[in-house]
Amino acid sequence: MPRCELITIGSELLNGSVLNTNAQFLARQVSALDIDVVNQVTCRDNEVEIMQALRTAIDRANLIFVTGGLGPTPDDITRDTIARFFGCGLEFDPRQYRQIVKFFKTIQRETPAVTRQEAFRPAISKPLVNRFGIALGFYITIQRRLLIVLPGVPRELKQMFDTAARPLITRTFPNRARKYSLEARIAGLHEPQIMNRLGKRFFRDRDFEFGIYPAIGEVTIRLKSKDKRLLAVLKRELREVLGLHLFSFENETISEAIGRELVRKRLTLSCVESCTGGLFAKLITDASGASKYFKGSAVAYDDKVKSDKLGVPKEVLSSNGAVSGAVARALANGAQRNYGTSLAISITGIAGPLGGSKRKPVGLIYVGMSSPLGTQVFEFRFSGERSRIRLQATQRALFVLWKWLKS
Amino acid sequence: MPRCELITIGSELLNGSVLNTNAQFLARQVSALDIDVVNQVTCRDNEVEIMQALRTAIDRANLIFVTGGLGPTPDDITRDTIARFFGCGLEFDPRQYRQIVKFFKTIQRETPAVTRQEAFRPAISKPLVNRFGIALGFYITIQRRLLIVLPGVPRELKQMFDTAARPLITRTFPNRARKYSLEARIAGLHEPQIMNRLGKRFFRDRDFEFGIYPAIGEVTIRLKSKDKRLLAVLKRELREVLGLHLFSFENETISEAIGRELVRKRLTLSCVESCTGGLFAKLITDASGASKYFKGSAVAYDDKVKSDKLGVPKEVLSSNGAVSGAVARALANGAQRNYGTSLAISITGIAGPLGGSKRKPVGLIYVGMSSPLGTQVFEFRFSGERSRIRLQATQRALFVLWKWLKS
Repeated sequence: MPRCELITIGSELLNGSVLNTNAQFLARQVSALDIDVVNQVTCRDNEVEIMQALRTAIDRANLIFVTGGLGPTPDDITRDTIARFFGCGLEFDPRQYRQIVKFFKTIQRETPAVTRQEAFRPAISKPLVNRFGIALGFYITIQRRLLIVLPGVPRELKQMFDTAARPLITRTFPNRARKYSLEARIAGLHEPQIMNRLGKRFFRDRDFEFGIYPAIGEVTIRLKSKDKRLLAVLKRELREVLGLHLFSFENETISEAIGRELVRKRLTLSCVESCTGGLFAKLITDASGASKYFKGSAVAYDDKVKSDKLGVPKEVLSSNGAVSGAVARALANGAQRNYGTSLAISITGIAGPLGGSKRKPVGLIYVGMSSPLGTQVFEFRFSGERSRIRLQATQRALFVLWKWLKS
Repeated sequence: MPRCELITIGSELLNGSVLNTNAQFLARQVSALDIDVVNQVTCRDNEVEIMQALRTAIDRANLIFVTGGLGPTPDDITRDTIARFFGCGLEFDPRQYRQIVKFFKTIQRETPAVTRQEAFRPAISKPLVNRFGIALGFYITIQRRLLIVLPGVPRELKQMFDTAARPLITRTFPNRARKYSLEARIAGLHEPQIMNRLGKRFFRDRDFEFGIYPAIGEVTIRLKSKDKRLLAVLKRELREVLGLHLFSFENETISEAIGRELVRKRLTLSCVESCTGGLFAKLITDASGASKYFKGSAVAYDDKVKSDKLGVPKEVLSSNGAVSGAVARALANGAQRNYGTSLAISITGIAGPLGGSKRKPVGLIYVGMSSPLGTQVFEFRFSGERSRIRLQATQRALFVLWKWLKS
């Protein structure tokens, strides 16, 4: 069985300036090819430390990724260090150099002299072409091990993994134990509630791997098994036990799932937000093609905007306060009317850290939903920091909408 | 000089399910204490692999963090493995157990039997109390090395670092070479443009560390030096060379800096967005206290909303198209009028991936800005994926606003 190790190089990763998203990307991609990622190490742009990492990795893994340190500045030493590690020199690759010259031509600049060194790679390596940048990737096959070296720029790394590294891996390791996987995405339930619903029976005497990954307002479950039929059974059971909360088996967000349903039912949507300040509309319009169903929305921070622009009666505001079920109801109705949409969502609440009171604490949120069948209002209480409360409120409003669409 | 190594434990990090934000958090915090983080490794919940990581770390570092694998489930083996590594048993900590019982009392649940094991720690360790959860942290001081073990839940880890780990580190390593640091945040310029403005003279014959960290639409520069006076000189030079682009020396976002200026000048703000779908408003309202200056906004996706609700003349829409300078101008004026604010921003454009044409390609963005002095319109062209174009457009609109405020 192939075992993979990831070496990410860069001082910026070790002083906390940059979040290591490359390690996650590679881990996910390699795992999807049914290869276990066993170790991930980060070291600085330092020859001794990179050498040590290479030695350990070659000792315990047969698929090794090295990323970062391939740029043209003096602290980029990955290329040289790998050549030295394998005791071979660097070699000029004229094909890659033509690629670099071409790259600068398309952005209408002359090729800087310093980038010539980008066209060098260890003599025992083979090139991996980078179509999005100038850093040359390469790979080395030695003693049944495959070492793949990619630039650290996330966009370039991703593109090169897709076009070059993945086919290389499947070709080099053809006899991987094929596993099937199933990913379920769940809204409106917390991790313990989900585990409770699944119960012990779900896990008993059946051979599969189980992972549960909570994010704010959303949980993902991932199942893996060699037995395709078992996965089909588990899929059916998940659907039964989780009902509408399970919004997708595809790798999609709840906004995308909502978009799909809106298109299918030829419904349109608008919204009005207070404490979430545009986050609901932002998530809805993350989905490309949202213009088919999303007409518009308002952020009504000011009470005057709520009454003048969205028709919330001043008495309703003064007698209930802006954070109230009555105002959520009036806002949803106002948006539906204003934008002429079949559906409208409203969110009003207190995201904090200031503005809370004993009767209306930070985290109190009202969600309104208008449809041709009438208007419903929901009250929620969330906890945590401002950003967390805003995201929870938005995710819950998305679930309210999703539930209505599927009921 | 102390050298730090981070060991993050958890199979979920190696199959790509979870992004390792703990490593970045710890790296940043430890670096801020003038201790170099030299290595970071991730290993699975596997005794042999954890042991190997511990051995290597103790060999090359004197401050070692271990996180993750402290929960109550069977795959959480960090506690046991560390005890075995040091050849000592586990010891029951009655004080911690009382803490756990108390924790469950506050959430009105009985203490589950399985959590009793959470109150055990290696006999040679000392406890670190967790106020946000039930996982016990602990630390071990041995052979001039400090090993700190914290739970993997980010919220608990952060809280325990702040209350317990930081004071422990400063006490254990009192003789750190004190370095001063300076962080500058820059908008509206790309990394190469910034480097160009700084020039070689900036770096010549002066003893400081320099880091530059580009994000989408924003760049951070970090300088470090033992010489406090040199930093003051560099600060002045940065300000001269970068002008208005340098929006903060504090650790704040451009939205927060804008908010500060709006309050100071007693100005109010509204906005209307098309392709960015609420992202501008979301970023503005990320700042707590935004209700002081932010009145409201609209997302006008539909042309009918643009004309009916924001007063964009139908002829302007039909003769110029929704993505045009004329419409950006009319939208900014409409928002300013509608919400009665001193300033208004509008954004209209094509975020893609669909909807582009030869004359109006994906990435074409217009930003309008209305003020008491009139309305200005700016045209931009961005590239990349939908999410990237949306973020670039929003960041640029924020910079347009910032520039106006500071001019």
